Amino acid sequence: MSFDLIKSEGLARAGILHTAHGDVNTPVFMPVATQGSVKSVSPDDLYEIGAQIILGNTYHLYLRPGVDLIKNFEGIHKFINWKKPILTDSGGFQGFSLQHLRSIKSDGIEFKSHIDGTNHFFSPELTIKYQEKIGADIIMPLDVCLEQGTKDSEIQEAVKLTSDWAKKSKDVHSKKDQLLFGIVQGGLDEKLRVESTNDLIDIGFPGYAIGGLSVGESKPEMYKIAKFTSNLLPENKPRYLMGVGSPEDLIECIAIGIDMFDCVLPTRVARNGVLFVDYGRINIYNAQFRDQDGPVQSQCKCYTCKNFSIGYLHHLFRTKEILYYRLATIHNLHHILKLIDNVRNHIISGDFFDFLSDFRSKYIPSDQKVRLEQKQKWLNSQRLKN
Amino acid sequence: MSFDLIKSEGLARAGILHTAHGDVNTPVFMPVATQGSVKSVSPDDLYEIGAQIILGNTYHLYLRPGVDLIKNFEGIHKFINWKKPILTDSGGFQGFSLQHLRSIKSDGIEFKSHIDGTNHFFSPELTIKYQEKIGADIIMPLDVCLEQGTKDSEIQEAVKLTSDWAKKSKDVHSKKDQLLFGIVQGGLDEKLRVESTNDLIDIGFPGYAIGGLSVGESKPEMYKIAKFTSNLLPENKPRYLMGVGSPEDLIECIAIGIDMFDCVLPTRVARNGVLFVDYGRINIYNAQFRDQDGPVQSQCKCYTCKNFSIGYLHHLFRTKEILYYRLATIHNLHHILKLIDNVRNHIISGDFFDFLSDFRSKYIPSDQKVRLEQKQKWLNSQRLKN
Repeated sequence: MSFDLIKSEGLARAGILHTAHGDVNTPVFMPVATQGSVKSVSPDDLYEIGAQIILGNTYHLYLRPGVDLIKNFEGIHKFINWKKPILTDSGGFQGFSLQHLRSIKSDGIEFKSHIDGTNHFFSPELTIKYQEKIGADIIMPLDVCLEQGTKDSEIQEAVKLTSDWAKKSKDVHSKKDQLLFGIVQGGLDEKLRVESTNDLIDIGFPGYAIGGLSVGESKPEMYKIAKFTSNLLPENKPRYLMGVGSPEDLIECIAIGIDMFDCVLPTRVARNGVLFVDYGRINIYNAQFRDQDGPVQSQCKCYTCKNFSIGYLHHLFRTKEILYYRLATIHNLHHILKLIDNVRNHIISGDFFDFLSDFRSKYIPSDQKVRLEQKQKWLNSQRLKN
Repeated sequence: MSFDLIKSEGLARAGILHTAHGDVNTPVFMPVATQGSVKSVSPDDLYEIGAQIILGNTYHLYLRPGVDLIKNFEGIHKFINWKKPILTDSGGFQGFSLQHLRSIKSDGIEFKSHIDGTNHFFSPELTIKYQEKIGADIIMPLDVCLEQGTKDSEIQEAVKLTSDWAKKSKDVHSKKDQLLFGIVQGGLDEKLRVESTNDLIDIGFPGYAIGGLSVGESKPEMYKIAKFTSNLLPENKPRYLMGVGSPEDLIECIAIGIDMFDCVLPTRVARNGVLFVDYGRINIYNAQFRDQDGPVQSQCKCYTCKNFSIGYLHHLFRTKEILYYRLATIHNLHHILKLIDNVRNHIISGDFFDFLSDFRSKYIPSDQKVRLEQKQKWLNSQRLKN
């Protein structure tokens, strides 16, 4: 068994996930190291922040530096000098985010490289081979992830392909020290979510991801389908909601039974000047911070808050000093990981729902319209890069 | 006395400079924190590398965040969280590097901000006031620094103004915990160097800088004038050669009697992919490093070399990962500081000239033509920014 459920409170769960590079306490947030580096921070920064596991993107690592090169360096852990667990995704998400550069076939996804336009083919079987060469502790099968608003017949087809590819992935996966999870698709359609979940449970995986959310739908829709799908999954396996990572979403989704998360949001918004505080978020560029002494968040124990004033961070951001990006990333990741650590302790002590009420009463989420616009802006930037 | 000369070998010297924030072993290289941050590294990185003193630029700090703001934060040390000595320059160098944006008057330098085109005036008296507000341990008087190839009559005039301004600077300087150095000018003209040096010695300073070199002349010219001027300076005061910082220049200039150096070169070239090694320098972008395991420099004790392979650094640089800039900067600064530390130990043990011969026989300096072209390219980039 690779997962131990330790304690539940309502639907919320605390557990331990066992991997080849050590145990992971769940719920857990995985910082994203797209190209083999969590942008702007070092492995030591991440250990100090308390990161337990990070995520790499197979599509990006396949293009640069290449999976054979990583294998020659004895795998991703040694190549990037990270001693704890790593999860790699399958390229399925890039089939969504880079949709102008890909074509989905019955036997896989054809990509035009966003770097140089060269052609690359990801079949379910090749995707497993790539991830075996990369050598992460948890790997994902190729899936079909579609954007919000896709018509029903296409989502139906995506569910079928995703199940077919999951089966093929399991059949070829041979590295026993890697956990291969399954990915549930089905958009916002409960019937399709049931179909996809049943297919994957029939194949059988040591953990299940919920994909195809956080792709443009509203928050209530996302919570509803995440909760519905989470409830269909086996209790004794970890549940991973892909692409979710704002403080409010993490807490709400832990409350509905999710164990694992990943998202570029905390690190990306940090680089754009947005820092998390207990009541929500601030924009460091705001002139009110120019002459403000004291840390970004009082009582925060992160390296940034222990050493630098908000006024200095404002100055570094305004003058585009590289140091800003590291300090901001450290703060946001620490904020998220500390929050989840707290949540886990409250689940174990049985008062998580008090904590949740308190959080909801104090926290000001970012405006939904602004959020969706920002997400679309980011997606467009991904699509314009070529 | 703020300076103790401990040992000499030939013209080379080992000493200790006493400042309000502690002692500095000389010879010393000062990493440059133009805007209050040594680009891409933290104060803790600099302590670990062994940096003893850093340099800030008054012109840049005056524009952003502003000298009054720094004063309100109780000075530059607290604002940037650096507990060791700091030196600030006077803006005189920006009178050279931003010459399309300045006009030299008899009573000071008028600048158009390179950021927003607003007008600013640096008189010798104001420059001291600005630096008193910033609060560095060592401060510099406003001087007139001209480019290589300036006609004799202008250099003559610059020497006169520089002496006049040095006198005014000393007259208004009142903060007793700051050391105000003098700056010798005079281009490549020995007669003018004598005149400038005599003027400054007459005024009397606790340390002397040699300015107006490393501004486009050849290396033999630079060494010749630096040596000539250094020999004119009092033995019991520190000698600071401004703007010099390649490994070969540092060693050669220590051999002719210089005690202090600053330069953006080690940090700037790091960000452009150039890393120092014992025999010279390498460009990390070179394809030969793609699959190379092991550190940039064997036996190097820097954080970068102890933790990451040259192949991973190549990957980070190629994919423009922010982490690269920090790791490269750490390596280059560590290389320079370790080199000077070695040199100091050899001066103290009396075998520096053996070390120098050995260094000269092994080291491959960068091509002079390439070097001057790169310097010109950088200067042009400074001048085009507006």
